[in-house]
Amino acid sequence: MSTIAVVGGTGPQGKGLACRFARGGHDVVLGSRDGARAAQAADELAARLGGRGGTVAGAENAAAVTKAEVVLLAVPYAGHDALVASLAAALAGKVVISCVNPLGFDQRGPHGLDLGGTSAAETAQGLLPDSVVVGAFHHLSAVSLNGDADLLDHEDVLVCGDDPEAKQTVMGLAATITGRPGIDAGALRLARQLEPLTAVLISINKRYKVRSGLAIHGVSGS
Amino acid sequence: MSTIAVVGGTGPQGKGLACRFARGGHDVVLGSRDGARAAQAADELAARLGGRGGTVAGAENAAAVTKAEVVLLAVPYAGHDALVASLAAALAGKVVISCVNPLGFDQRGPHGLDLGGTSAAETAQGLLPDSVVVGAFHHLSAVSLNGDADLLDHEDVLVCGDDPEAKQTVMGLAATITGRPGIDAGALRLARQLEPLTAVLISINKRYKVRSGLAIHGVSGS
Repeated sequence: MSTIAVVGGTGPQGKGLACRFARGGHDVVLGSRDGARAAQAADELAARLGGRGGTVAGAENAAAVTKAEVVLLAVPYAGHDALVASLAAALAGKVVISCVNPLGFDQRGPHGLDLGGTSAAETAQGLLPDSVVVGAFHHLSAVSLNGDADLLDHEDVLVCGDDPEAKQTVMGLAATITGRPGIDAGALRLARQLEPLTAVLISINKRYKVRSGLAIHGVSGS
Repeated sequence: MSTIAVVGGTGPQGKGLACRFARGGHDVVLGSRDGARAAQAADELAARLGGRGGTVAGAENAAAVTKAEVVLLAVPYAGHDALVASLAAALAGKVVISCVNPLGFDQRGPHGLDLGGTSAAETAQGLLPDSVVVGAFHHLSAVSLNGDADLLDHEDVLVCGDDPEAKQTVMGLAATITGRPGIDAGALRLARQLEPLTAVLISINKRYKVRSGLAIHGVSGS
């Protein structure tokens, strides 16, 4: 079991993933720009866990990151680049997971932002030359993550990255959420496809009044 | 039951989808640049069907299209724009389905081409102002389509479009393949997400030596 820091750990997605990791036995540190807010969110999460699983702490982002071997970026795309760049030194040598979804919303619904042939994960890798960035956990809904189901066992976590070892680490982490390893989706640049796919799932959720999830048939027992 | 023309009906994807539509009771016309080749492919398909389902014919693309209410574009992305533009008059007033995937392949594997913030389906709609374009059937593998399974009932067909009635037609067509209606994924512009997602599925297929398929959990009985 490792220590996982979540940058953006007070938002619904970050907190939900942190909750699942902690339930799976990992120690988690919620990071926020505001250390007091992070500590409060950690207290709430610890109360929700009721003593199950790993420890939960909260700290200002840079401090949170230093305690962890694995760091999850769960921040809004707006402001993403500046925040990631500011953490470059603290993130050196670590596996950094990006679940960032660069999405836009207008009258016609959600859509992927046109990033000009790149992705949030690749941008983060460019800003973090001494870290290894892996893309994963884009498609799990915050409501499901924060819900009561023991495992989100109808969903698959797609993992993309250029470092096989880091990717294996993240695929293993996914099993704490879905009950089976994440699926190796390929190279990091496929984050260009994984990130905006979330717009499709949100669109389906709105249309059908459901919480949809992604499953890949034919790989495992799914 | 309607008549469905498949532009690019001699390729594996087009032929596989045509086979499924015919098995579902629709009359199909395989289109090709070469009418004789289309007729030969139609004979092969008819032999495979062995009298089941709808009729199968073959014709040069423009002639194939005039016989149909619904037309599927199943052509390679290379040359797509010129071919579609050349059929604009013949396609006027029809529902046009695009399953075109603009993909690239290099040493790092498959990836979505950067179309500069558009998609093959939206490009087709721009070239066909008197037709209604719907995006669908991007993710079904040609091998599965041409295989023996009665229904691809572990997979979902995602359908995007801006015309609700045309979208309903295509969602119904999807049921002939998967046993349940296609899922309304939202506006046509979400084809930007659906088309290159095929690169992820191909990447998974190569890595795991499987034929993966996409399923959306939480919408229907899936």
